Formats: sequence, structure tokens, C-alpha cells
Amino acid sequence: MSPSALAVDRRSAVPLQQQLVAAFRDAILSGRIVAGQRVLSSRELSTHLAVSRNTVVNALERLHAEGYLVTVRGVGTFVAESAYRRVPVRLHRARTALVPSRFAASALEVESLVENLDIAVPFRPGVPALDRFPAAAFKRCFDVNALAERDFDYPEALGYAPLRRAIAARLAQSRGIVVDADEILITGGAQTALAAIAQVLLDPGDRAVIEDPAYPNAVAILRAKSAAMIAVPVDEAGICVERFARRAARLAYVTPSHQYPMGWVLSLERRLKLLAWAERCGAWIVEDDYDSEFDYTGRRPPALHALAAGGRVLYVGTFSKTLAPALRIGYIIVPPELRRALRAAHAILGGAPALFVQAALARFIERGYLGRHIARMRRLYDERREAAAQALREHCAHDLCVMDAGAGLHFVALLRKGIDDRAASRLAAQSGLVVPALSSYAIERTGMNGLVVGFAATPPVRAWRAAQHLAQVL
Amino acid sequence: MSPSALAVDRRSAVPLQQQLVAAFRDAILSGRIVAGQRVLSSRELSTHLAVSRNTVVNALERLHAEGYLVTVRGVGTFVAESAYRRVPVRLHRARTALVPSRFAASALEVESLVENLDIAVPFRPGVPALDRFPAAAFKRCFDVNALAERDFDYPEALGYAPLRRAIAARLAQSRGIVVDADEILITGGAQTALAAIAQVLLDPGDRAVIEDPAYPNAVAILRAKSAAMIAVPVDEAGICVERFARRAARLAYVTPSHQYPMGWVLSLERRLKLLAWAERCGAWIVEDDYDSEFDYTGRRPPALHALAAGGRVLYVGTFSKTLAPALRIGYIIVPPELRRALRAAHAILGGAPALFVQAALARFIERGYLGRHIARMRRLYDERREAAAQALREHCAHDLCVMDAGAGLHFVALLRKGIDDRAASRLAAQSGLVVPALSSYAIERTGMNGLVVGFAATPPVRAWRAAQHLAQVL
Repeated sequence: MSPSALAVDRRSAVPLQQQLVAAFRDAILSGRIVAGQRVLSSRELSTHLAVSRNTVVNALERLHAEGYLVTVRGVGTFVAESAYRRVPVRLHRARTALVPSRFAASALEVESLVENLDIAVPFRPGVPALDRFPAAAFKRCFDVNALAERDFDYPEALGYAPLRRAIAARLAQSRGIVVDADEILITGGAQTALAAIAQVLLDPGDRAVIEDPAYPNAVAILRAKSAAMIAVPVDEAGICVERFARRAARLAYVTPSHQYPMGWVLSLERRLKLLAWAERCGAWIVEDDYDSEFDYTGRRPPALHALAAGGRVLYVGTFSKTLAPALRIGYIIVPPELRRALRAAHAILGGAPALFVQAALARFIERGYLGRHIARMRRLYDERREAAAQALREHCAHDLCVMDAGAGLHFVALLRKGIDDRAASRLAAQSGLVVPALSSYAIERTGMNGLVVGFAATPPVRAWRAAQHLAQVL
Repeated sequence: MSPSALAVDRRSAVPLQQQLVAAFRDAILSGRIVAGQRVLSSRELSTHLAVSRNTVVNALERLHAEGYLVTVRGVGTFVAESAYRRVPVRLHRARTALVPSRFAASALEVESLVENLDIAVPFRPGVPALDRFPAAAFKRCFDVNALAERDFDYPEALGYAPLRRAIAARLAQSRGIVVDADEILITGGAQTALAAIAQVLLDPGDRAVIEDPAYPNAVAILRAKSAAMIAVPVDEAGICVERFARRAARLAYVTPSHQYPMGWVLSLERRLKLLAWAERCGAWIVEDDYDSEFDYTGRRPPALHALAAGGRVLYVGTFSKTLAPALRIGYIIVPPELRRALRAAHAILGGAPALFVQAALARFIERGYLGRHIARMRRLYDERREAAAQALREHCAHDLCVMDAGAGLHFVALLRKGIDDRAASRLAAQSGLVVPALSSYAIERTGMNGLVVGFAATPPVRAWRAAQHLAQVL
């Protein structure tokens, strides 16, 4: 056997010994050297390859151990009879081309909505002001040395107990929701929460009510469970409960504080009707309160969970909007009947966030940093919201109509007839603006024509300039 | 209206103003005070309730804002006509009792295997030596101040780039797997990885090959997708590929380095046959290499991924066994055809771990801490493995036969006929030992009778004592 078959690369990060083993294996498996063939001695290989004798000896030992080589004492070393040739690997791309599962197909659709986003892009929806992330305070809350041996283990299935207590206390203060810490399940963000809920509540074919237009990730998750979707239009008072009041479903997914994407707030009347419907047909309500802390009017009705005294409502919260998406922490307030199943499902899906981050966030809330940060951000976002709306009214009044419901981190701007929102969104992207087309959030609904405008991460000066660019695009 | 309807609790964590608002809402929604009814003045309420005037004024303003109250100037304040009564909430437990989804049902089965586990319990499988977690080194790697604004955003969908590079470098050194950092997708642990893979590869009814006995969480995830499972027995050389070689399937889930739970290593011959089968029928192989770093024999064949040159193998790794489960970080080496779909699916399921932890782990690997920790743990676990096996042979030789394949963090001890493993496991749990029954991991297979014994987290002295206890139980 010629040692030239065993090329090694001295600039590679892979150790020489490792390379030598891999080269031998490859030569055997590909049939370039065959069973029974003699292998050069370690001395000869060392000389030919200019690799230290020790490295060669170790590599050969490894190959012996793996069963590729055998040594006959006094005769020599050979490729073992049992060293099988590798199946020829050919990538038949045509044959093996991925036929994606239904879930993968809808996941890919959603991806195209959010691909290639950069933090610096003006008007990008769904992100808080990350330039104001309180990094110093957050770092002070990290203390891995304070963690005990138990804390390096799999996290408690419900989540880190001090964090659950801190969230319960905050919910009482800021949302009027009074719950015990044991009713809270910590998740890896709102997405993980929705995925676990869908797994526990839905079997293929079960009916699920969803707002139209809707949060695309929620739609993808319902599609993943092959749910039969009942898409219900929303208006200024939120989801039109009357439209499905006589139909039964297993669950209804709603965003009452700030409908996604329209921004409308579900009225008290509709809230009560929705709860009555759920009671009547035994449905569960999933209340996604993703940006609930940002209400600039003070007029918002109480959470569904507070109105229903918890009965049939799963309340989903997240720290992605109040603090930073990078944390990946959210939570569910779970009705007692669902607690065991949801805890088990969430554990199996592997959704629990790292304990270190849970512990840091617990301290961050307990020490009052979160409350202060949110209060500051509420003022900041209120200013930015005014500035963004003002800039668009100033520069794009002819083509756009801002619909500002006074909540959340984004609003919708309706486009005048004659402008196609997908085309406008594409053109805007080319000039560096991320303003997704409203029609891309529609499920069955037609006639949606507008742009979704995020304001929280866009300072006034940049909003002004961005509005000028947008005017040119339109 | 009598103020006695508005009880406040001074010891509660909920601020008095918040309590007052909630009490008013509740009285209105429950119909105790009705539309048009007059409300006492803030001065009167303040006196009757012994709460500061300011608190009462703020509470009333909030109720005005929410639309519960209206003030007629010069006349007084009234419960608004538009203040709707709450639907009477009755929890019809019988009617609404949860009929769990198929997934929830199998999740609950798995939960019973691992419930109420404590770190201090001897022989508990699946956990590394957490008493040796290198907390000081890990803390030095945490540096949230070093993160830029961009880093507080949603994590890059593939995971933090420096961590992907660090993992790629380590795979080349320790497993002979040469991949580009862009082929790696960071997940929230092995569970999250499996959940995303199942979502992308499987539609209801698709066939999936699985080892029997098997890792229960993987079984639950396949059941969640309503996969048609082909359960294939394992023997000393791993999964019996011959048994399904003529059948087609969409995927095969295997644990080649250390079969879970049996501990056997998949032979080179079977590895090549498995790869040939996948090529023939266009199936994907999911190689779960959960505790691959712990091979005490040096004889283990290369990873399937290395043998197949990547073609049809999704390699799943985790840091739960090498470092700590609390991190919640794993990864998948993704074939190029699946990359976009898997990245999108994982993003929608919300599986990405917190960026801070990804960044800390990247530094921990780059600075060589992980390599040193694993080398130390390999020596430690080898000693603990010997000690546990020795202790069981000493004390339970009559009833148990230790099957130590020389890898991983656990081994199986077969029970002699006449002892039922579930009964033995239950009794052991009562005397403080966690040794799950082998038969509880079986899918279709009968005749499994043994205990799964974890040794990594059990020091020799405790193993000795635990074996004595187990002998008494048996």
C-alpha cells in the first residue's frame, strides 16, 4: 500500500493522528485498500509521511481497536477481513429531494416573512428598543456561583420556582391577574408555549378558532397539528365573536391586548361573549398577551384571564418584548385540569430555558429592574409611536392611513387602493425598510392592503428619514 | 352601594389600588352592583375603607378609563350602562375533564418514568457528575457586557455563529466528524432537536424505524406526529438491521454509540448495512449521540455521520451529559437538503436557547475548559462505573447480572427470572434508589427484565451502600 494515499494537512485544525485514522478508514471503506492487504510498519509510515512515530503508533492502535487492522505476530499488520467496504455514497438529489412535511411547508412560508432582518432596519416590527437593554443591571443578576449542585440538573419541569414567584407577583401588580406561582409554567418563549399547548389540546382534525389576519407562527403551529382552522375576521373591537358563536371548537387563539397584526384591542363586550362561548362549548381560550405591558391609553379592558377567573383561559406571556428576545423566556398560566399534561408535554418537547437565565431573570424582576425598565420603555415607545405616526402622516399622507390603537410595539398603515402591499413591501425592503405586507398575514380574508410598521426600535430621527424613503417607494 | 362589598387585604402583595379596581370590577361583573347604580365619592370611599384618598382616586380613574364607570358632572359617578355582567363561571369538572391529545397521553406515560427525581438519589440514570460542574470557569465565560445590541435580538436561526464554529472544531477533534459551522443548527437540547426533526420529516402515518427497547422521549415524539412505528429489536451488536432491511421508511432513529437503554454499541457491520438501507429506500437516519464522549474502551466504530460522509444522517449531540442539563443546549448536523426547512421549523417551535448561554458555552469550549472537563470526567466515570459494577456483583450477584458495554453514563443489570423488574424498581424507589425497570422502555418487545443503573453521578462509597440496599430489596 502506498503511503501517498494517506495525505495529511498540516494547516488543518484536526490533529494529525485524527487525520491519519480518518484517511486510513476512508481508504479501507472506499475500497482503495482491501481486506488482507499489508500495511506499512509504523516506522516506515512515520518516515514517508514525515509525521512523528508516536502519532503513527497511536493512529494504528486506534485502527486496531476499531477493528480495521489485525496484526499477525512476527508477520505484519493487515487490513482486517471484517473491515467492510463503505456503501458508495451518491447523493441522488433528484430522488432524495425533500418532500417537506405539511409543517415544514408552512414553516418555510413564515420564514420568508422574517428572513434577513437586521436590527438596524427602521420600522421592523416585533422588536423592543435593544439599544436600551439594561446590560449592566442584567449582568449583576447573573451569579452562577450562587447556584447549588441541584441547579445544574434538568430544570424543574414547571420552571425555576423563584422566577415563577416573581412573575406571579408582577402579574398581580401590572395586570390584575392573581395566580399562585404553581399555576405558572416557564417556557422558552411564546412560541414554545404555543407549540406545547397545541400538542396537548389538539389531535389532527380538531377545530381551532383563529383571528384573520393572524400571527403567522401561530397559524403554522396549528397547521402542524393538522387542526381544522376556523378563520374569523377581526374589526376595531377585535375578533368577531358573533361569527362563530354557534360553532363548537377545541380552542380559540386570540391576541386581545393588541390584535396581531391589526393592533386593535378586544372590547369588554366581546371579551365576555368569548368567555361565554368557551363555557358553552367546552373550548379553551389561548390568550396571547405578547406585548401587554405597552398600553399608552390606560383604557384597556382587563385580561381575559382576569375576567374568567381563570376557568378556561391559558394566558401566554413573554419577556421578548419587555426585555429582549435573546432571553428566550415566556410563560403560561395553566388551568389546573391541564397542568400535568402541559408540564409533561413541554418537558418532552425540551422547551425549558437554561436555568442560569431563569435565575438571572428572577433576580432582575425581584430587584425591581424590570418594572423600572418597562416604565422607561413605555414613555420611550409612546414618543417613538407618535414620531413614527407623525412622520408617516407628514410624508405619505396621500398613500397611507395610520391606524394607531395606542398599544404595543407596532401599528398598521393602510394603503390607498391602487397600491399593492406586497409590491410596496418588496420595494421598501430594497431600499432598506422592513414593513411587511398586511395581506401576507391573511388566512382566508381578502382585501387586506397595508403595511405593518414597528416603532419601538426606531428613534424619531430615523423614523423621519425612513418615512421619506417610504414616500419615494410608494 | 355599600363599601363593604369592596374588601381589601392589607397583607396581600397586591397594591391596594389594584385590589380596589379588581374588587369593583368583580362587583360589577358578578352583578352585585348594576348599571346605573351610584358609586360613593372618593372621599366617602376613602373614609369607609380606611384607604388613602389618592389611592381611591387613582382606582376610580382606572375604572373610568376601562369603561366601568361614568361621571355626570355635578350629579355623581355611576356604573356605566356598557359595563357588562360576567358570564357565571362554573367549573363543570365532569364535562370539561381533559380528554388529552394522543401526544399528551404518551407524554404523561413518560413523565411517570422520571417523576420526583432528586439529584442526591444513587444510581439515577442520565445525569453527569453535577458535583463536579466547573462553575467558576463557566462564570468567567459569562460576559453580557461584551454582547452588542444585535445580540439581544432574536438569535440567529441557526444559532450563535461562534458556538457553531467551536462545536465544528470539537467534532473534528473528538469524533472525526468534519463539518462546516453552517451545517450545525443549535437547539435547546436533544429533545428540541428531535421534536424539530420529527416535524420536518414526518406527516401522520409516515413510517419510522425505532429501536426496541427505546428512549421513551423519542417514542413520545414519534407518537405525537402519529408516525407508524416499526419497532426493531436490539442485540449485543445494536439494532437488528436485517429485520427491516426490506421495508421502506421515512426515517430511522438510532443511538449507535450506546444504545438507550441497553448500552450496546452498534457494530461497524450493522452501521454500514444501516447506511446502505437508508440509501436504498431514501430514508433519513437520526443518529442520537447523546453520551458519545464517554467511551471507556477506545474500540468504538466511527459515527454513522462520519461513515456516510454525511449523506442521509442527521447527527444529534447535546451538552446535557458532557457539562450540565441545566444549560439546555444541543445541536444537529443537518444535511444540506434539510437545512432551510429544519431551520424554519426550529425557529417556529421556539427552540433556540438564550444567546447569553450560547455565547458563554462558545467561550467555554474555545478556551479549552470543555475538553479538560470531559477528560477529567471520563476518568472519573470510568472509576465510578467499575465501582458500581463491582458493588452490584458483590452484593446482588445472585439476582443481577451487570451488562457493562464500557460506554456512557449508565449500564443495564438483568434480573434473574422470578423477580419482576417493575416491582423491584418500585420497591427500590421506596428505599431511595432510582433504578427504572427495563421493561418500561419496551415498545412491543416482551421478556425484558432488568434495571437501568446510572453510575456517573454516584460516588463509589454511595454506590456500595446503594448496592447493599438493592440487595435487601431484591
